[in-house]
Amino acid sequence: MAHQPLIRTRQKEKTINGISTQVVCTEFSNYVFIVLTQYGKIGTLVSITPDSRSSDISTPMFTTKVLLGKDEALTHVIAKNVATFVSQEAGNRPVLLGLALKDPSAENLKILKDLIKSCQVW
Amino acid sequence: MAHQPLIRTRQKEKTINGISTQVVCTEFSNYVFIVLTQYGKIGTLVSITPDSRSSDISTPMFTTKVLLGKDEALTHVIAKNVATFVSQEAGNRPVLLGLALKDPSAENLKILKDLIKSCQVW
Repeated sequence: MAHQPLIRTRQKEKTINGISTQVVCTEFSNYVFIVLTQYGKIGTLVSITPDSRSSDISTPMFTTKVLLGKDEALTHVIAKNVATFVSQEAGNRPVLLGLALKDPSAENLKILKDLIKSCQVW
Repeated sequence: MAHQPLIRTRQKEKTINGISTQVVCTEFSNYVFIVLTQYGKIGTLVSITPDSRSSDISTPMFTTKVLLGKDEALTHVIAKNVATFVSQEAGNRPVLLGLALKDPSAENLKILKDLIKSCQVW
């Protein structure tokens, strides 16, 4: 029987508009760690935390915080766009996301999200 | 030929004083990412950055910063103790370290360091 590691990690690669894009997803008990990179770098590190609002579960809200790297508005937008679904699918666990994108254009966000989806560890 | 992933990641497990301990090491071009956990959690996230002091390379200095979690003096001590060698071996790359230890006693630090060493990706 193959050894089942306790911490699950998966990795995928995809060429998006000619740019080699890697995603690495690792599942910890209190966080899902995701790196989405087109530079091989860990990039800007963002935490995406669901707000606890027991009164209205139909419209979940998320708080994003840049822990490492440049704090730009676009980073928060991208982070929420590509990673909130992970938190929702992972029982509202927060997500730690590394973003190092050459081309963060809007039409790529769906592809990037699908790439994360293809690396599901949660 | 087996597919060689662009982002190298390795994982090990060891029982230390009866406590199951996991280490996950992932190599990015600008960081080595290490999680050392006895809870399955990512734990306290610390960056360990070598100071650039070109005049004296014989005594490297490191700056530790807690990015996520409780900022305790002991965390900085442990982080420097177990992870500065990684930075030195990895061409002075900074290290991003997740620490979630039940037993961070001094006699375990050498074992934890060896566990990281056994997961070399840099």
